[in-house]
Amino acid sequence: MATQQGRHFLHIPGPSPIPDRVLRAMDMPIIDHRSAEFARLGKTVLEGCKAVFRTSQPVVIYPSSGTGAWEAAIVNTLSSGDTVLMAETGHFATLWRQIAARFGVNVDFIPGDWRRGADPATIEARLVADKARSIKAVMVVHNETSTGSTSRIAEIRKAIDAAGHPALFMVDTISSLASVDYRHDEWQVDVTVSGSQKGLMLPPGLSFNAISEKAMAASKTNTLPRSYWDWQEMVKINANGFFPYTPATNLLYGLREALAMLQEEGLDNVFSRHQRLAAATRAAVKAWGLEVLCENPAEQSPVLTAVMMPPSHDADRYRKITLEKYNISLGSGLGKVAGKVFRIGHLGECNELMLLGALSGVEMGLAAAGVPHRSGGVMAAMAALEVRDDGNQVPVAAVA
Amino acid sequence: MATQQGRHFLHIPGPSPIPDRVLRAMDMPIIDHRSAEFARLGKTVLEGCKAVFRTSQPVVIYPSSGTGAWEAAIVNTLSSGDTVLMAETGHFATLWRQIAARFGVNVDFIPGDWRRGADPATIEARLVADKARSIKAVMVVHNETSTGSTSRIAEIRKAIDAAGHPALFMVDTISSLASVDYRHDEWQVDVTVSGSQKGLMLPPGLSFNAISEKAMAASKTNTLPRSYWDWQEMVKINANGFFPYTPATNLLYGLREALAMLQEEGLDNVFSRHQRLAAATRAAVKAWGLEVLCENPAEQSPVLTAVMMPPSHDADRYRKITLEKYNISLGSGLGKVAGKVFRIGHLGECNELMLLGALSGVEMGLAAAGVPHRSGGVMAAMAALEVRDDGNQVPVAAVA
Amino acid sequence: MATQQGRHFLHIPGPSPIPDRVLRAMDMPIIDHRSAEFARLGKTVLEGCKAVFRTSQPVVIYPSSGTGAWEAAIVNTLSSGDTVLMAETGHFATLWRQIAARFGVNVDFIPGDWRRGADPATIEARLVADKARSIKAVMVVHNETSTGSTSRIAEIRKAIDAAGHPALFMVDTISSLASVDYRHDEWQVDVTVSGSQKGLMLPPGLSFNAISEKAMAASKTNTLPRSYWDWQEMVKINANGFFPYTPATNLLYGLREALAMLQEEGLDNVFSRHQRLAAATRAAVKAWGLEVLCENPAEQSPVLTAVMMPPSHDADRYRKITLEKYNISLGSGLGKVAGKVFRIGHLGECNELMLLGALSGVEMGLAAAGVPHRSGGVMAAMAALEVRDDGNQVPVAAVA
Amino acid sequence: MATQQGRHFLHIPGPSPIPDRVLRAMDMPIIDHRSAEFARLGKTVLEGCKAVFRTSQPVVIYPSSGTGAWEAAIVNTLSSGDTVLMAETGHFATLWRQIAARFGVNVDFIPGDWRRGADPATIEARLVADKARSIKAVMVVHNETSTGSTSRIAEIRKAIDAAGHPALFMVDTISSLASVDYRHDEWQVDVTVSGSQKGLMLPPGLSFNAISEKAMAASKTNTLPRSYWDWQEMVKINANGFFPYTPATNLLYGLREALAMLQEEGLDNVFSRHQRLAAATRAAVKAWGLEVLCENPAEQSPVLTAVMMPPSHDADRYRKITLEKYNISLGSGLGKVAGKVFRIGHLGECNELMLLGALSGVEMGLAAAGVPHRSGGVMAAMAALEVRDDGNQVPVAAVA
Repeated sequence: MATQQGRHFLHIPGPSPIPDRVLRAMDMPIIDHRSAEFARLGKTVLEGCKAVFRTSQPVVIYPSSGTGAWEAAIVNTLSSGDTVLMAETGHFATLWRQIAARFGVNVDFIPGDWRRGADPATIEARLVADKARSIKAVMVVHNETSTGSTSRIAEIRKAIDAAGHPALFMVDTISSLASVDYRHDEWQVDVTVSGSQKGLMLPPGLSFNAISEKAMAASKTNTLPRSYWDWQEMVKINANGFFPYTPATNLLYGLREALAMLQEEGLDNVFSRHQRLAAATRAAVKAWGLEVLCENPAEQSPVLTAVMMPPSHDADRYRKITLEKYNISLGSGLGKVAGKVFRIGHLGECNELMLLGALSGVEMGLAAAGVPHRSGGVMAAMAALEVRDDGNQVPVAAVA
Repeated sequence: MATQQGRHFLHIPGPSPIPDRVLRAMDMPIIDHRSAEFARLGKTVLEGCKAVFRTSQPVVIYPSSGTGAWEAAIVNTLSSGDTVLMAETGHFATLWRQIAARFGVNVDFIPGDWRRGADPATIEARLVADKARSIKAVMVVHNETSTGSTSRIAEIRKAIDAAGHPALFMVDTISSLASVDYRHDEWQVDVTVSGSQKGLMLPPGLSFNAISEKAMAASKTNTLPRSYWDWQEMVKINANGFFPYTPATNLLYGLREALAMLQEEGLDNVFSRHQRLAAATRAAVKAWGLEVLCENPAEQSPVLTAVMMPPSHDADRYRKITLEKYNISLGSGLGKVAGKVFRIGHLGECNELMLLGALSGVEMGLAAAGVPHRSGGVMAAMAALEVRDDGNQVPVAAVA
Repeated sequence: MATQQGRHFLHIPGPSPIPDRVLRAMDMPIIDHRSAEFARLGKTVLEGCKAVFRTSQPVVIYPSSGTGAWEAAIVNTLSSGDTVLMAETGHFATLWRQIAARFGVNVDFIPGDWRRGADPATIEARLVADKARSIKAVMVVHNETSTGSTSRIAEIRKAIDAAGHPALFMVDTISSLASVDYRHDEWQVDVTVSGSQKGLMLPPGLSFNAISEKAMAASKTNTLPRSYWDWQEMVKINANGFFPYTPATNLLYGLREALAMLQEEGLDNVFSRHQRLAAATRAAVKAWGLEVLCENPAEQSPVLTAVMMPPSHDADRYRKITLEKYNISLGSGLGKVAGKVFRIGHLGECNELMLLGALSGVEMGLAAAGVPHRSGGVMAAMAALEVRDDGNQVPVAAVA
Repeated sequence: MATQQGRHFLHIPGPSPIPDRVLRAMDMPIIDHRSAEFARLGKTVLEGCKAVFRTSQPVVIYPSSGTGAWEAAIVNTLSSGDTVLMAETGHFATLWRQIAARFGVNVDFIPGDWRRGADPATIEARLVADKARSIKAVMVVHNETSTGSTSRIAEIRKAIDAAGHPALFMVDTISSLASVDYRHDEWQVDVTVSGSQKGLMLPPGLSFNAISEKAMAASKTNTLPRSYWDWQEMVKINANGFFPYTPATNLLYGLREALAMLQEEGLDNVFSRHQRLAAATRAAVKAWGLEVLCENPAEQSPVLTAVMMPPSHDADRYRKITLEKYNISLGSGLGKVAGKVFRIGHLGECNELMLLGALSGVEMGLAAAGVPHRSGGVMAAMAALEVRDDGNQVPVAAVA
């Protein structure tokens, strides 16, 4: 019988494991948030975030969950009665829609089957059809954490441009930032929403809005009431490295360290590492004879892989058994797919052996829970990861 | 010449120093926020908070600064066009008023000179005069962090009752909770607002609303739009130890530890310690020949002491010199009293010798900055603290 | 190409990974080593150690490496010119012999091929042959860290008894304590030597001697000079929870926490966990078509597994490639087997998924280094670990 | 009544408070002590230590208490029957003498009254008188931690030279290194003994020998048996950044950080800070009407101040009361002066306000324990510390 001794394998799609360097950076005495020393910290992280969002425009940092940054994007740019276009990519797109609705925003919600990203062609068609230009914003989730599908943001940008539509473009990168290639400026996104507890490898508690000039202009004329989330005062005071209200200083210590780690590894290396680990995970799923929820290979997430359970097997029972026997946390199915899928996170502080340990747990858990599958998933994942420096597979030498 | 070596003396009125136990509790791997282990954490802290607020009613915890909890109190209970009664106790009362105004709430702002707490008699008079019962809420800052004046909440409760007025009673305890005696239920407060970075000895990043049944009822009929701050879903999901969106798990680890520390010391002991340290600080100020900003002895804060600078001496220049020479952070004057006062925090993780070290820095700083004063402040503080177990002063033995 | 991002897999046979709880326990302010608070710490750890050594006799704790505790055992009981009996189980037995030699002790060193533990029958034969009773001590390494062979201490005890020989019995448990079943009192060991950085899950820096009455008596008549290692003053002062010289306080904080963790898991569970992980590791080695260095199944170590490289393949080159590609540290071959074996540690803070991650690295490393092997080792290890609660193997369900 | 809440004031003369940076540096996963990464660590700390000892010759680092480094100096250079010259400066000189005696070394112990350092003239006279050159070593404690007297090492060097005597010169700097100016090479010291838990601001657990060529040569011919403390193998293996047995890796992480901190502040600044804090402490003692144990102003320690209790007052009772009431640890009297003195540590991680907080505790403790004294000690210490940048005292401005 397995025990709960030793390191827990946290393989939910966020919060992701926090590196020791980041934890230790936060584990330091707090300083005066109105001091010159704080201003240096503030400027460093505010500037450092821009590199991660790939923007030269303002990024604001809220002491809040990512949910707060969703709300901030809405209340700073829209008015009650406005219409926006969203795509039903999964549970989190649905939640963002609900928030918009709470603020009186009408959402044209393109239906989806939760097995792919938002479709650029459909978005283009809706925008073209909107002769009155009544759609104020297109709002898309980059990486749908509930399904493991990634929307093609650059193509959606092109669709908006092709339609010649003036709508704002707002993208949720809560679970993609610093894990999947993303370019706020190049893709002319107006508001990029994000959070701390995924690719940034921090605890939850910080959220972000990267803001284009067009979005900033909209924030001066929209009419939703706001205070905590208001961009104007935030951006003004950020210029000196300070915040309009008490910032979450210790989380900012962690952010400074995490940004340094990302820079040391190199963002492109970070992205390719996520791609590599995701490909290995999918190889394992295939070997097990199970199915990846996301049907479009071009949209399968580098961040997490949602795996479909065979019919009449409950994913939550499986996850419970696997946790108890093998000390690993896997993500549950959410909303429509509750009980039908489990999710394997492979984001942030993750490398080959951490992933293979996790996939071993998934595979042994399948056996323990009596879920029909073929063994060999871990072996397939290893084969996928065993690539020589010349890019070729290592031939597995046979013992005579 | 002094150096910046050694431990920094953080004596701003919050964020207060974070105990090592709390820092280390937060410095642990993050767990799945949907796990049974998390539910145990959630229930422990949600329940533990009630003891600190002295309530048996719900306390909700936001991942946000205290400013967010101010906003939460407003958007959950009021509607645009509503009128509320507030008292100008200082800078933070003024900020709370501004937030109310941003949400279309009319504020009847009882003017104040920033040298005392809110006046119960004036509040009673306003409520009595409000024949139409148009005032929806009385909103008071318990401990005004900008001035070091504490409002008499129990008496204000009596004033509201005496007026027979149905207004909600909302109190900001951001800088008083767990430092000054406070009783949400006994004083029939409807919404108590608080934050993590003061008496709770945590980093900033958590805020609180304690909610009466009456306030909860109001939240079902008021019309301000809200999502992040909404009580209904929060309270519903909290029942199982969970949160409607990703909680700031590591801060909750810290909260669990801080609540344990408060319980170990005993809340009443915590309060009397703050009283004792505050009295010693005032003794020092008096000995220096300087003046405490708060004029009413019954309202002088156990949390911080704001000290008035002699005319023509700039408090911020003084603070800068003291920081550079003696490695101590003091609080700046805010708003109306900027440059005119400096503030000494003596809250949270603070004891006699920490305070006396800090007061030594204040006194040496006065000399270094050429601020006219008498020496002997530290000595007076020591005398105030030297109390024998029988409650009598220790006679200072003379050397023959 | 793999990166060094993410958690390092430390799978040398010690120092073993330090649990977060232990690291954080040490990360606290130091206290006065002559205070009542320290005495409580001292008594707790001195008493707690006894449970781990399974003794009611004194255990002394040195601020030193395990090497120091080897020396302590010698200088407290032997005199220059004495003869002792040792068995060549591997590199560490050889080192202990060298230390004895440095103090003028003659070592009768039973030769060995480094592929098994010390042989009880041979020891008995030597003792029987020692008619003059000139052998003062039998000194054996319980778990030979260089080879992964465990000597059968209970049987060696019986051998000594069968020979009716009065020699002291001294056992090195540096790498076995708290990982392998061991009983100082029941097996009538006179001096048990140990260290902190293996089964006790601490950093290196503490070492131990558990001391029988017979050994203590010997320490009163032997003639090797000593001070730092002297038992007499240590045991006398330990009675009050103190130490004769400044103790390594922060390591003692860690020891207190580690002892608590061992007690929580239960020593017997700790031992069976090590057995289970070791069996899985050997299953992997077998599947790879490689050979375990230890030839006697009854003596194969629960702590580490030394794996023989195929002829003409250099183990150190293999370890270097595996470290660079997969961020895992494996133990090198030492002494006679340098370059010929690598060692996989599976001790202390280790569980199923940590081990499977590590074995994945070993297997991929074999491929990367071009070492002839069959794949499937990880799969075999998984099969070995997949045991149902009823003790039967889980049948791997076939997908239709 | 005072409580034990808040930060403890540790003002014993070592172990000294450990800076957060050092604690956090040690709070990291352990690495393979045979890896290239470890070699970089090893080389950094071995080289960094040389700067602190002001030597270009080898410094060896033991995993042990300072007591071990005392023993190491003896067993590496002397033989049983050798004679050495020592000076009775206090308790620790007496202990070092006992260790020498345990190894059969004859100690010519120059008697002392514990109120001053070792006298260069007396040493010179003894050496001159030793026509047979039978004295093998002069062994002196630089800073006698039990009395607060510092011996004048440079003058003793001159005394040895004046006598033209070939004795080795061995100096204990356990409590002076990195606090008091010290120059291993310039003063031609042959063995400098030190420890980690004082000026180096680390936990106890590391000790040091800095070794001259002459001492190294002696170690090749002396006859005391040794293994753990042996210099030869240590120095040989250190050349590659490694150690002959498992090093205390996490303490070495801390050493790396502490060396960086000392370099950042600058050793000369560190020394003058200690001088300044010691002078302020003595000013307080004088103001209290009490007496400093060390009578020679030129030898009063920058590290600690031993204070004599008035007759018929027990220092340990005083320390106990002060600890209970004010949460401060003071050093006890040791050996001959037990109960007669208490010691105030002001070393390592210490600055003005930390010291003034501590002196406040000492002064209030004197009152609480009914020890006859004048108040005003803290005030006198403040006056001693209040120095303007031009070097002049700040005139205390009178309030009109």
